[in-house]
Amino acid sequence: MNGAVALPLDLPELSFTASGDALVRRSVLPSGIRILSERVPGSRSSTVGFWVAVGSRDELSALGTTPSRYGSTHFLEHLLFKGTPSRTALDIAVSFDQVGGEHNALTGKEYTCYYAKVQDRDLPMAVSVLADMFTSSVLDAAEFENERGVILEELAMADDDPNDVVGERLFEAVLGDHPLGRPVGGSADTIKAVTRDAVWQHYGANYRPQDLVVTVAGAVDHDELVAQVTAAVASAGWDLTALSRPVERRTAALAEVRRGEALSLTRRPNEQAVVMLGYPGFAAADDRRSALGVLNSVLGGGMSSRLFQEVREKRGLAYSVYSFASGYSDAGVFGMYAGCSPKNAGTVAELLLGEFGRLAADGITDGELARARGQLSGSAALALEDSDTRMSRLGRSELTTGEFTDLDEALRRLDEVTPADVRALAAELAGRALSVAAVGALDAEVFAGLVETDEPEPLKAVS
Amino acid sequence: MNGAVALPLDLPELSFTASGDALVRRSVLPSGIRILSERVPGSRSSTVGFWVAVGSRDELSALGTTPSRYGSTHFLEHLLFKGTPSRTALDIAVSFDQVGGEHNALTGKEYTCYYAKVQDRDLPMAVSVLADMFTSSVLDAAEFENERGVILEELAMADDDPNDVVGERLFEAVLGDHPLGRPVGGSADTIKAVTRDAVWQHYGANYRPQDLVVTVAGAVDHDELVAQVTAAVASAGWDLTALSRPVERRTAALAEVRRGEALSLTRRPNEQAVVMLGYPGFAAADDRRSALGVLNSVLGGGMSSRLFQEVREKRGLAYSVYSFASGYSDAGVFGMYAGCSPKNAGTVAELLLGEFGRLAADGITDGELARARGQLSGSAALALEDSDTRMSRLGRSELTTGEFTDLDEALRRLDEVTPADVRALAAELAGRALSVAAVGALDAEVFAGLVETDEPEPLKAVS
Repeated sequence: MNGAVALPLDLPELSFTASGDALVRRSVLPSGIRILSERVPGSRSSTVGFWVAVGSRDELSALGTTPSRYGSTHFLEHLLFKGTPSRTALDIAVSFDQVGGEHNALTGKEYTCYYAKVQDRDLPMAVSVLADMFTSSVLDAAEFENERGVILEELAMADDDPNDVVGERLFEAVLGDHPLGRPVGGSADTIKAVTRDAVWQHYGANYRPQDLVVTVAGAVDHDELVAQVTAAVASAGWDLTALSRPVERRTAALAEVRRGEALSLTRRPNEQAVVMLGYPGFAAADDRRSALGVLNSVLGGGMSSRLFQEVREKRGLAYSVYSFASGYSDAGVFGMYAGCSPKNAGTVAELLLGEFGRLAADGITDGELARARGQLSGSAALALEDSDTRMSRLGRSELTTGEFTDLDEALRRLDEVTPADVRALAAELAGRALSVAAVGALDAEVFAGLVETDEPEPLKAVS
Repeated sequence: MNGAVALPLDLPELSFTASGDALVRRSVLPSGIRILSERVPGSRSSTVGFWVAVGSRDELSALGTTPSRYGSTHFLEHLLFKGTPSRTALDIAVSFDQVGGEHNALTGKEYTCYYAKVQDRDLPMAVSVLADMFTSSVLDAAEFENERGVILEELAMADDDPNDVVGERLFEAVLGDHPLGRPVGGSADTIKAVTRDAVWQHYGANYRPQDLVVTVAGAVDHDELVAQVTAAVASAGWDLTALSRPVERRTAALAEVRRGEALSLTRRPNEQAVVMLGYPGFAAADDRRSALGVLNSVLGGGMSSRLFQEVREKRGLAYSVYSFASGYSDAGVFGMYAGCSPKNAGTVAELLLGEFGRLAADGITDGELARARGQLSGSAALALEDSDTRMSRLGRSELTTGEFTDLDEALRRLDEVTPADVRALAAELAGRALSVAAVGALDAEVFAGLVETDEPEPLKAVS
């Protein structure tokens, strides 16, 4: 991966109680494989994830120097379901389907995760199948060509979803040529161009023992889990005796972000226009993340938020309206979204910006702060009922900061946030370069008061 | 509602243990209000629903005799969030947001449900607010006009989603003029036309004590819940001393279904074509529902299903491909879906039909039956971890059959299904009238081999 720090070879075993009475443990095998579990008393299900800290942002370094490799990380993720020497693609699907489990994978900008949620008795099966996929996929050439077609359909499906499109365009506009600005899946052109050799090279370079993090939450016995993972990867013929390189974590050094575009307009003959406004935001581990959570909650985090009240409740201009804060290791995006009639798109964009500007100028009330604390702590407590949430949180912590914050610690940090912190944060964001992305039957002049405008791209049409 | 049977005035109290160690109880107040709870040991959250057995199918009888009322049930659902004499819309939103709860509502074809998921300590608040919304909404005239705009945006958003559109068109095509064939939300024209008086009349006629069913699952004490509901509705000034009419349940008499269209084509300049094939299916309470579950699982219920294997894994023609079975009180729809390149739409539709025809002709193997049983029982067990699922199941059972089937009983029925049952069911379905719905850059001739074709509608375009 880009910009990584080596972890100590003797990364310690961990064991502590988190979030009520859940027991978290981490073991590090001599090969560098990291295994983390969070045992939740009373849980009857287990969610397991096999993680690697490589995502779409790493594709140039992982795969060579040409943009034609974009989307290869996601392509590889698909291919891991297509068979090993001991299991066909159908065998893999049957393994999970016949126990009613959920299984899938997720390629992100900074990691890839293969996961399954099963009843407790089926956890050993899930570990065994995921380990086989992770270590021993064959990437069969015929399957590779078939899957190219499937991925092109997935990209086409996303391209027909205005919300997907506007989100991708906003990230490109706000983050410019920063690698986090690229779409995860690549494009139809890069997927048509990529070769099996390139993806095979990616697989070999990034799916080694020291890259693997296994996390399990719910009904799990840590020692049994370590034995299962050890046995599964040993049977794959991996050299598990010694590290071939240190285990690494991505550095958190902040990147410089130069805006790509002020306005990214995608013209479509849709009923609605979808509009996003965004600024370069903060990294996931930024010290101000609790204040950022409060800002996002007050501005656009629920039905009582300022954006919802102003744009939907008071004016009836949108059905869906919200704000969001996305953080990664070295950069982030803070943004606002609304879907509205094309004729109201300019007005709605001005309302979003007006509400944000008012918050940056005048700050938030004590009542809003108390409400945001309640919302963030209550929703976090509810989310912990799902073993999926816990599994995912465990994996992201290990891959990024290496810091495991339980609910009590998160609440303590939240209690320290003041209205002044939130106002200062909003003012800093509002001073950064604004980008607008929109999809719909719109002309660029609609946003002339907000950003400089360009010629629209040619309109999509069917022959 | 249309076609209802009266329940005995002395509908009994119920109390039994279901699905492991959960305790289900039902109480019926003198006013006819039915209160059901499912206490799940160890649960820290509660999900509560306020239900009424009126959905979009009931709009003609509930609201008069003109189609201009279509969508009024969904309109009313929105208005219940807009304020009571003691709570503004903002107060309602703040109540749930400040504890991090989830709250929303769902209008279906046969029922409407207002629900909230909260931590256990917040259940009394949730009951109190939902009861106030249910009994005492004011439907303010200015809020009514604002909300008309919001609902028009919601419809526009759905219209821009090809999957939403193709689903609505398939139901219309398969069910013809049966009231279940209509879209839940009405159309822009009916929403522009509806008056506050009509919605007010709907509210008064269908939200009385004997219409209300309250269900709670998770952390709940039944006796406390009954006391909370009783106190909340009493403070609304409802006459709770006696039933003004018997409590009713919808009849399960099967309706005759006459197909609306053989082909419903919506031309859009999209990257993908989305295609659905469907037949009139079975009512929710049909004796063959376990066999139908197996049929759906084997045909298109997971990654190991025949449709997924044939269309995606073997041929790489689609990313998303599946089958589904929707059942209501007197009719249903059985269908298949795929999203693919427009140039492959005809081939993909033939593949879907071919796989279904092969299953109807040759049946399923013992291995497929065993796999489907495992899938259905395993996924049902996993779903029971969520209090949302249990709350919803409880409400739908009380509103429809009045029969509470726990997991063991469902598994026993599943064990009785034979390959011959599934084959006979598939053959019966395959003998019914086929309809095709598609959205995309397609001409009707693409489906000429499957159904008779008509002229396409004019293509949507932006000026």
